[in-house]
Amino acid sequence: MSDFSAMLLTPASEVRARIEGLRSLIEKGRLDAAFFHYKIDYYYLSGTMQDAFLFVPLDRPPVLFVRRDLKRARQESPLEEVVPLKSLEEIRPFVRGMKRIGLQLDVMPYNMVIRYADLLPGVEFVDSSPLAKAVRKKKSPFEIKIMERAAAISKKVYARIPEILAEGMSEIELGGLLESYAKPLGHEGLLRMRSLNYEPYTWHILSGRTGSIVSQSDSPMGGLGLSPAFPVGASRKKMRKGEPILVDFGISYHGYHMDLTRMYAIGHMPDRFVRAYEVSRDIERKVLDRAVEGASASELFHYSVELAKDAGFARYYLGYNGHKVNFLGHGIGVELSELPYLAPRHDYPLEEGMTFAIEPKMVFPKGGASGIEDTVLLEKTGYRILSDVDDRIVVV
Amino acid sequence: MSDFSAMLLTPASEVRARIEGLRSLIEKGRLDAAFFHYKIDYYYLSGTMQDAFLFVPLDRPPVLFVRRDLKRARQESPLEEVVPLKSLEEIRPFVRGMKRIGLQLDVMPYNMVIRYADLLPGVEFVDSSPLAKAVRKKKSPFEIKIMERAAAISKKVYARIPEILAEGMSEIELGGLLESYAKPLGHEGLLRMRSLNYEPYTWHILSGRTGSIVSQSDSPMGGLGLSPAFPVGASRKKMRKGEPILVDFGISYHGYHMDLTRMYAIGHMPDRFVRAYEVSRDIERKVLDRAVEGASASELFHYSVELAKDAGFARYYLGYNGHKVNFLGHGIGVELSELPYLAPRHDYPLEEGMTFAIEPKMVFPKGGASGIEDTVLLEKTGYRILSDVDDRIVVV
Repeated sequence: MSDFSAMLLTPASEVRARIEGLRSLIEKGRLDAAFFHYKIDYYYLSGTMQDAFLFVPLDRPPVLFVRRDLKRARQESPLEEVVPLKSLEEIRPFVRGMKRIGLQLDVMPYNMVIRYADLLPGVEFVDSSPLAKAVRKKKSPFEIKIMERAAAISKKVYARIPEILAEGMSEIELGGLLESYAKPLGHEGLLRMRSLNYEPYTWHILSGRTGSIVSQSDSPMGGLGLSPAFPVGASRKKMRKGEPILVDFGISYHGYHMDLTRMYAIGHMPDRFVRAYEVSRDIERKVLDRAVEGASASELFHYSVELAKDAGFARYYLGYNGHKVNFLGHGIGVELSELPYLAPRHDYPLEEGMTFAIEPKMVFPKGGASGIEDTVLLEKTGYRILSDVDDRIVVV
Repeated sequence: MSDFSAMLLTPASEVRARIEGLRSLIEKGRLDAAFFHYKIDYYYLSGTMQDAFLFVPLDRPPVLFVRRDLKRARQESPLEEVVPLKSLEEIRPFVRGMKRIGLQLDVMPYNMVIRYADLLPGVEFVDSSPLAKAVRKKKSPFEIKIMERAAAISKKVYARIPEILAEGMSEIELGGLLESYAKPLGHEGLLRMRSLNYEPYTWHILSGRTGSIVSQSDSPMGGLGLSPAFPVGASRKKMRKGEPILVDFGISYHGYHMDLTRMYAIGHMPDRFVRAYEVSRDIERKVLDRAVEGASASELFHYSVELAKDAGFARYYLGYNGHKVNFLGHGIGVELSELPYLAPRHDYPLEEGMTFAIEPKMVFPKGGASGIEDTVLLEKTGYRILSDVDDRIVVV
């Protein structure tokens, strides 16, 4: 149907290049083959998220085993072998003679791995997730194009904020309106991270004191949320004059993410939050000026901590004392958080084609939060900000 | 802050009764203790979803180990031992001398279980998830009260549909508007199911042919969705006159779900979809008339298949031939899908206090879908429909 054919599909050349990149890692890891059961990874490698899993042997074509829906998987994936699967036992002929096989041991439930072990006695299983993560860390021009489209949605959504933000509106009311505006533009509403207990949601709108609530997320601030069963992000708290309002509203489009944060206020923003924002923005710019090919990811983190200290914000930077997070930035693509990380111990060099979100933010206990975030692409000539939204504080 | 204290918290008596129910299962399973790392389960057992895990020994008080945020976990959970945890090794003194310990082997990633095995050599690990599922299968009056509040949100949301549904509006536009309306009422937007690759989203608005797209979900119909990376639910397809429009818009409130489906049309609904709806509603009523304490869950399923056959709808019932799902109903509570199931091989008796969604639906290849769904509580005197929304087709 026309609505279906209008969807962007991953081209065959793109999937081929990804599989080739993966194969060289399979070879380097001395594996005979690798399975990918986690849908974010097999979407990247096959072009479809139908209920399936991907088998990539070292020297034969990859096979996508599909439980449901086969027809749609064949429409979406350019892979040649997209086959139905009723029972896991049907994989046996495909792995005959193999000794070392990759499985995604970081995300696959224990019971699922045991089924493999029972089915294939004598086979050694190795975690295949590091391979998928490594092959994803540099983006292709096709991926950049999708991220630019996600950025275009972000731009429209952020432009909408000053039009609707009003005193007495609750955080969740604003969040709901932004979602309902973004979804018809293609926003999928799913910001994805791999973790047993993380759930995709559309992130943070925090005003005044909710900006200083830590909560469970690995973020400098988590917010109040709607209940103990959804204790993060926008809440039913009403936004008032003179509060810092932090909007960290991520977009997902065709599985790719765009992450950015801007600051708003009704009436006026108190000086210390204005100053915190200016310092955050200054840190972002200075760090990005050093974000060139070959720069060390961990050194950029440490440099930012020095800058925050010099500006007198050490206590508030990346969370207040005792509740700090240990990263300034995170890679971004089909997962909201992936390689590279601007964080301690991530001592690898940045490379052309990497995309990451950088988010220097300040949190004041019982006061609120203020800061900036942008999504950035590293090019040959330096960085380029993809999240192309005016970076001044907006007061309505 | 006032916004926080307005949140409903799980009372101590409630948590005590749940832990006691669990303990008797721990004893029956001849376990020394059980751990719960999956947040849906430890929310049920502790009252909080902060980044934590719960330890329930057979004969000592339960301990909630909290990584983040300790203060909030203590506010939300009435448990007495809510303690900080920096490293998994800190559990050692708590499990000293234990031989058989429960871990959630159906959802915990393999690598996480191996960390336990390395830390506690000689201990036998047993899947603790069946215990959590079993203790949750009957609802308390407190839980019913929350589900009634979720139903009240559903009622408002469904009343909104005829006010805004219009020709040329896309499915996702309607979905977004309903979400933005529901969220300030307390809807969390997360319909939860335990599975590696399932993601919470706000389900289905399907019109005409999108109602016959199977997609990857374990549902008679999945829809087109927004892209290959989000291939289920509402799409950008515009709704037109004379199409069946199926709205299966679940609500989550304080972690509890309400699930229902109603049918809409613009201008008129074609006869075969009207007839399919009437047959579906008739099946629901007849099955519910037999849904009494002691009735067999699987027999209710088989009875419904007979009814569909007698009405001449065997080919379309619960999905069209080759794409049928194998259940008529699913238990519902803190998970959208839990015990009991009205499905083959679920040969257990229904009990007072159980809640389940019943969803007889018909799918016509390339035509669309039509059917009904309600969430039901089994009481001493018979069933009670919680999803209290008029069940006539609405034509605008």
